[in-house]
Amino acid sequence: MASPAKNLLYAQSGGVTAVINTSAAGVIATARRNKAKIGRVYAAKNGILGVLREELFDTTDESDASIKALAHTPGGAFGSCRYKLKDAVTDAVKYQRFLDVCAAHDIGYFLYNGGNDSADTSNKIAALAAERGLDLICVGVPKTIDNDLAVTDVCPGFASAAKYTAVSVLEASLDVAAMAETSTKVFVYEVMGRHAGWLAAAAGLAGKAKGSAPHLILFPEIAFDEAKFLDAVKETVASVGYCVVVVSEGVKDAEGKFLAETGIKDAFGHSQLGGAAQQIASLVQAKLGVKFHYALPDYLQRSARHLASAVDVEIAYKVGEAAVRYAIAKQNAVMPVIKRLSNKPYRYEIKPALLSDVANHERVMPRDFITEDGFGITPAARRYLEPLIVGEAYPPYENGLPVYVKLKNKLVRKKLEAFRG
Amino acid sequence: MASPAKNLLYAQSGGVTAVINTSAAGVIATARRNKAKIGRVYAAKNGILGVLREELFDTTDESDASIKALAHTPGGAFGSCRYKLKDAVTDAVKYQRFLDVCAAHDIGYFLYNGGNDSADTSNKIAALAAERGLDLICVGVPKTIDNDLAVTDVCPGFASAAKYTAVSVLEASLDVAAMAETSTKVFVYEVMGRHAGWLAAAAGLAGKAKGSAPHLILFPEIAFDEAKFLDAVKETVASVGYCVVVVSEGVKDAEGKFLAETGIKDAFGHSQLGGAAQQIASLVQAKLGVKFHYALPDYLQRSARHLASAVDVEIAYKVGEAAVRYAIAKQNAVMPVIKRLSNKPYRYEIKPALLSDVANHERVMPRDFITEDGFGITPAARRYLEPLIVGEAYPPYENGLPVYVKLKNKLVRKKLEAFRG
Repeated sequence: MASPAKNLLYAQSGGVTAVINTSAAGVIATARRNKAKIGRVYAAKNGILGVLREELFDTTDESDASIKALAHTPGGAFGSCRYKLKDAVTDAVKYQRFLDVCAAHDIGYFLYNGGNDSADTSNKIAALAAERGLDLICVGVPKTIDNDLAVTDVCPGFASAAKYTAVSVLEASLDVAAMAETSTKVFVYEVMGRHAGWLAAAAGLAGKAKGSAPHLILFPEIAFDEAKFLDAVKETVASVGYCVVVVSEGVKDAEGKFLAETGIKDAFGHSQLGGAAQQIASLVQAKLGVKFHYALPDYLQRSARHLASAVDVEIAYKVGEAAVRYAIAKQNAVMPVIKRLSNKPYRYEIKPALLSDVANHERVMPRDFITEDGFGITPAARRYLEPLIVGEAYPPYENGLPVYVKLKNKLVRKKLEAFRG
Repeated sequence: MASPAKNLLYAQSGGVTAVINTSAAGVIATARRNKAKIGRVYAAKNGILGVLREELFDTTDESDASIKALAHTPGGAFGSCRYKLKDAVTDAVKYQRFLDVCAAHDIGYFLYNGGNDSADTSNKIAALAAERGLDLICVGVPKTIDNDLAVTDVCPGFASAAKYTAVSVLEASLDVAAMAETSTKVFVYEVMGRHAGWLAAAAGLAGKAKGSAPHLILFPEIAFDEAKFLDAVKETVASVGYCVVVVSEGVKDAEGKFLAETGIKDAFGHSQLGGAAQQIASLVQAKLGVKFHYALPDYLQRSARHLASAVDVEIAYKVGEAAVRYAIAKQNAVMPVIKRLSNKPYRYEIKPALLSDVANHERVMPRDFITEDGFGITPAARRYLEPLIVGEAYPPYENGLPVYVKLKNKLVRKKLEAFRG
């Protein structure tokens, strides 16, 4: 029997972050405090794929302690996916299936936790449901370490990745500084960020004093100029004794070709990147003949919950809470976003934005965040970034390791035929 | 004028760690508490090179607060080097210079913080000084993330790198688990450890439950068997849905050739490694056609003071203290080592070992730490490793970043001609 209150369906989408589960915990805990308005909270297994396959976890049996622990557990507790619905005509069968699954499980609220693509999908579902006169409220929950969502001051997940990046570059640079006399002279650190240099810029926070590492940042916003770069490396090694380079995976040459193009494409048609640091390091070795090392933190940078930003954790939880509030208030096709009120201390408010204003817009980094020479960050960038990484939010530890929760993830009984879409 | 008490010279050698400065702080603070026996504490700039070049920092002007902060600062505060003295005949001129510099600056104690090579060098200097009837006590201070020093239960620096490795693999594995349905199926994580799989084994701590990541560890102790490995990956992806592989930079094939041989050699004649993860990932892609990602934390794993093991920090400080105590007691040619007394709780004592028993012996990991199939760690390995990563020892933070100290590093006035060795 369906409960009198409609059920809520939550799903995670795209690359996960250190705090996407924090948002999930915010959603579930808030829904539990509003039992008169919200029945069960279901979570789709592996994002929207789980909806199409009618693979839904019932979170009802998860203890309050587990949901509390979920708030400090990285990864995506229910599974995520890279899977994008196309327009309502092309993928009509899938949209219909989505609505069928919602109807079968008496779902009145759909909360989709993701980035640009997910905002677009939620928006399309909201439009379709409204067109059909269905009682289905769609609310987005923002998330992406890329920080490229429009409208919001910051995307949950970004600030923790930013903190991880700044701290890692700071620490590794101390290592390089100590060894440079007889060992590595050039150290290259690769950050994620396909089209926008937000994380690359965050690395710049490690260097407060003039001449301190990182010495050169290669942004996706600035076309890579080999000769200019090599000159700068040479000059830095000569004056400082070593050179720390941060390179974005998304760095492109003057023709717009990724430095690290591998030719492999993901489900969204994006190129699989990786290897920019290695290419930069090899170039330095070939042209300048100095010893190099490079680091590729890869998934570590987006899963390092042990080094999360307290601001990020707070925001991630609050957008989860807010999304449920909007859902209850029947605010359809919106997403909670962060509006900055002040830098020091960082004060903000959370308010709804239209999914249509978020969907498929990519926020680029302001050009005035990058120094004239293209290799560093400006005071404006610092003013934006610094407040976001403030505060530590350590997970509990046991026997030397963080205690991360593994949910029961009990699937609900299917009510429909298997989907053949 | 020389002070009535002889001065102490401290130097850092080889790859630095998250806690080598902790040992330095232990040395300096203990020397300051023993002013009747020890005059000034000098620190060589860039290790033994600084001695030969007569580039010595006088630590006297560093405040007690700075020395306290040094205990939580990664990197090597005075600079380190990869530079090995050969035997006393071949490098007679350098040994003589070393003794000349000690005499010129009234140095009665030489404390050398390093691994196998440094123990060997300290031992040779001690022998030569004794032969000449000089009043120079040489004491080693152990350090290496490779954990390959003989006699001691554990090497300061290892446990923090081990904790970093276990936590990073745990966190990244949660990310991979969440994404595997539509994205990365095989994730490869590369650890340092040229000849011994201690850090590779530490990654195994991340997987407590059966079937949990890391699923396959490639140890330098086990010859790489491509067919067996690929079968295991395939089987894991089929049963678990994804596969997390940890690969040591030192993995070799059946002919003993490093998987990641680059052909570049460092100052000690060791091959510069790196790229094992990439090779393993490419192999998996080529042979199994599944999507992969790989991480190469590189220097991050040995500089991540933000995630240091509290046990490691304690030990690193105490070996610094002990080394000074031995020096004062005129215990020559020794090194403080750790003797384990119990596993749970980890109890240990610090006692002197002869440098000759440490020098140039490489401790290999017991074969019974690796499972029969060669891909995992045994309960014996867990009993050894688990106690070492217990406890967090966070550095202080300000505005989101750890507060690491930068010392004044004031060079003493030279008294000798420049060295032309």
